[in-house]
Amino acid sequence: MNRTLSSFLIPATASFLSGCNAGQPDVFERLSSGNAQIVDMTHALSADMPFWPNPNGNPFRHDTLRAHPDGAPMMAAYATPEHHGTHLDAPIHGGPGQASVDQLTASELFGPAVVIDVREHVAANPDYQLSAEDLRAWEAAHGAIPNGAIVLLRSGWDDRWTTSARYQNVDARGVMHFPGFSEDAARYLMNERRINGIGTDTPSVDHGPSRDFPVHGIVNGGGKYHLENVANVGRLPATGAFLIVAPIKIAGGSGGQVRIFGVLPE
Amino acid sequence: MNRTLSSFLIPATASFLSGCNAGQPDVFERLSSGNAQIVDMTHALSADMPFWPNPNGNPFRHDTLRAHPDGAPMMAAYATPEHHGTHLDAPIHGGPGQASVDQLTASELFGPAVVIDVREHVAANPDYQLSAEDLRAWEAAHGAIPNGAIVLLRSGWDDRWTTSARYQNVDARGVMHFPGFSEDAARYLMNERRINGIGTDTPSVDHGPSRDFPVHGIVNGGGKYHLENVANVGRLPATGAFLIVAPIKIAGGSGGQVRIFGVLPE
Repeated sequence: MNRTLSSFLIPATASFLSGCNAGQPDVFERLSSGNAQIVDMTHALSADMPFWPNPNGNPFRHDTLRAHPDGAPMMAAYATPEHHGTHLDAPIHGGPGQASVDQLTASELFGPAVVIDVREHVAANPDYQLSAEDLRAWEAAHGAIPNGAIVLLRSGWDDRWTTSARYQNVDARGVMHFPGFSEDAARYLMNERRINGIGTDTPSVDHGPSRDFPVHGIVNGGGKYHLENVANVGRLPATGAFLIVAPIKIAGGSGGQVRIFGVLPE
Repeated sequence: MNRTLSSFLIPATASFLSGCNAGQPDVFERLSSGNAQIVDMTHALSADMPFWPNPNGNPFRHDTLRAHPDGAPMMAAYATPEHHGTHLDAPIHGGPGQASVDQLTASELFGPAVVIDVREHVAANPDYQLSAEDLRAWEAAHGAIPNGAIVLLRSGWDDRWTTSARYQNVDARGVMHFPGFSEDAARYLMNERRINGIGTDTPSVDHGPSRDFPVHGIVNGGGKYHLENVANVGRLPATGAFLIVAPIKIAGGSGGQVRIFGVLPE
């Protein structure tokens, strides 16, 4: 695979993107000179982490095949659902006939991060759905969402990651409660902007009470991916960071565990 | 995780790294303008790919949990050894007490690529071991191996990837034959240079006939990682490319599947 990434340069981020003209050094120089900071936006996979509620408990298994004298694994095997932990939903997950995870290219997987902070709404309503109005308000402050953007919902939910019951937030009737994107926001991003994907610091891009997962249908159905259970969204600024999205490359996979690095602006 | 990457700038690559001073635009501008090319250096995981010989066959399983009407997976689960397909050996794999895969930071995972082409030697001897002399010859031509480098063996072996028996290359006595690094080369890199890791387009950094895996002991034992079964090494120049190494983040894992992207120089 060897594709150009011609969709990123847009006026709203030009001052960040056109590094030299704006007096910014090459990102490699920033990395080498210690001026660049990289945020790891992936939770570690383990049998202790939160999972989508099911009668059998956490489905992640990690089995030592050969151990060092202290018991630490020298070799191990593991088993997991693709959609578990910090993971990527490939377009085929919610969009029949769309791309599987191994078919996504670097031009789709790399892009500028747009971070929409909805923590105030979530404090009042854990089922809050990021609205098209939230997106327009962000654009009024920061400029149009750039082509190739990966639009991240910042709800603050990953503060709950260490306590599975609080992260799942299931009520007495078995309904989950956590924030997500609204259908209107998903349609705005898919129809009015040219994004690479969306992501959330919650278990799903559709909010907890959803039964039919319309955002999955709109975004995956339109050929774009989701990132779910993203860590450290709060470490990124609203605009100016760059995301490197690196999913496990499972042939024909509907998704999979993903390593996400956020390169902070200077 | 949020570490600076201060170890990369060295004289040999300064002209590449100091983009602006050298008249090179910011990498984001290169990406956006279509001048940057990204090489995907990961083979897709499947039950058809080559595997380390064992009586039970290929250990990768991919099970559809819910299917679209055409049979394609909407959701799936998988099971695999950590050290299967294009994967990373965390230092703890060969070095008791060393870092597990989730503990490797971006400053260790990103770095300049050094590509050592030994195809001529391999044509005459499939068990060829990259020598310290090969490394010195490379340095005579291209300058010192930079700090933070990821040193890749280019043997041409991935031409065999589509035919598992040719990739494994097991003889009548059950011994595998494929190229790797020599102990001397491993010691030179660990003692005389400051690398981030090493990688190979073959099943192991120790060559096929090895029984005691000394390179594993030297490199993992010294706290550095290996990349094995790397794809498309031949698409990189000898020097000037930059690697983004993104392993699956398994808590306490001895390694795991890895997505590797090579950013080509202008």
